[in-house]
Amino acid sequence: MVFTKNDIQNADRIYRLNLINSVTGIKPGNLIGTKDSDGNENLAIFSSVIHLGSTPALLGFITRPSQKVPRHTLQNIKETGVYTINHIPIHNIEDAHKTSAKFDKGVSEFDVCNFTPEYIEGFNAPYVKESHLKIGLRFKEEIPIPLNGTSLIIGEIENIQISEDCIDINGYIDLEKSKSAGISGLNTYYSFNKLTSFPYARVENFINSNTI
Amino acid sequence: MVFTKNDIQNADRIYRLNLINSVTGIKPGNLIGTKDSDGNENLAIFSSVIHLGSTPALLGFITRPSQKVPRHTLQNIKETGVYTINHIPIHNIEDAHKTSAKFDKGVSEFDVCNFTPEYIEGFNAPYVKESHLKIGLRFKEEIPIPLNGTSLIIGEIENIQISEDCIDINGYIDLEKSKSAGISGLNTYYSFNKLTSFPYARVENFINSNTI
Repeated sequence: MVFTKNDIQNADRIYRLNLINSVTGIKPGNLIGTKDSDGNENLAIFSSVIHLGSTPALLGFITRPSQKVPRHTLQNIKETGVYTINHIPIHNIEDAHKTSAKFDKGVSEFDVCNFTPEYIEGFNAPYVKESHLKIGLRFKEEIPIPLNGTSLIIGEIENIQISEDCIDINGYIDLEKSKSAGISGLNTYYSFNKLTSFPYARVENFINSNTI
Repeated sequence: MVFTKNDIQNADRIYRLNLINSVTGIKPGNLIGTKDSDGNENLAIFSSVIHLGSTPALLGFITRPSQKVPRHTLQNIKETGVYTINHIPIHNIEDAHKTSAKFDKGVSEFDVCNFTPEYIEGFNAPYVKESHLKIGLRFKEEIPIPLNGTSLIIGEIENIQISEDCIDINGYIDLEKSKSAGISGLNTYYSFNKLTSFPYARVENFINSNTI
């Protein structure tokens, strides 16, 4: 089955949204926790969290700019300078999905979506207690993407909390053990099966066996 | 288990790479196919492909700049203006992982890693025949990320090829049926189980049932 650029442009809007939102493959399911300067908590689901680099430890996510539609997450990040990224546990996907509804600013998604805010000393953003992997970040930069009016929001990792049984002695996180959820498109959720790990790929390690 | 910023900075380099490359959660496993202006094919694994928007249909991926280390994928994209993104099938993860080795420019990873290049008329970049979801893109923009010297490479979707049994009448792609692979960290591969889909979340649909 082939879709040309014309097919995509002329498709029904919902069909196009479903298709284009799922062509990249699996996306990580995360909840971003923030607070505004008055202390009101906010929690929102994001499937666009991305690794940018390890030294310094930088993560990004994509958001529409807050000028067009109120984006509480981005507003709060700019007010307080900090936020948390929390893996969605597969047992909480229905509640996590509900955070995508457009609640008023005074409503805490923690309350209405059944998540428990949790704090560590000296860090002014709420973590999700139910999550098995929680990251605290400090806002570094907003990079505009003029092509479609979105932005890449970049933060540096300040701290990581993880259940001990999900990480091995080499620093690998087992996403099956952490019960982390994946997302496809706008509303479909997946769990994972760990297949295997391979060593660092070096040309000299396998080119002979393949070419003989 | 808690890692502070100091713990992360002072960790052994490999431990830090493993940890920070896996904290975002699952990453999509894709092979990017390109050609240079002499017609030499190139294939490389990327776990940073990200959805940027549906209208226009824009995808991004992160790469280090080609000035520091030769990055054949980025060089080729700039030479020809086009590239393909292909989901890695779970049955080909070992071969896909091998494409991450640093082959010389004259070597085609299609050949040494056992993938079959495939073309459609009028589009000058190789698709991966073995993949069940293949996307052709036209390069639009490179956005530098000065914080760590990486770039976000943005392309617009020109065409999509997908096995008919993996897509439903609403445009949803079933990533379990397409046998698409996920990646955690630098070298661990996952398959997926579809759990469920939820309708578009509207405040009025559930706030009463939760608050009564």
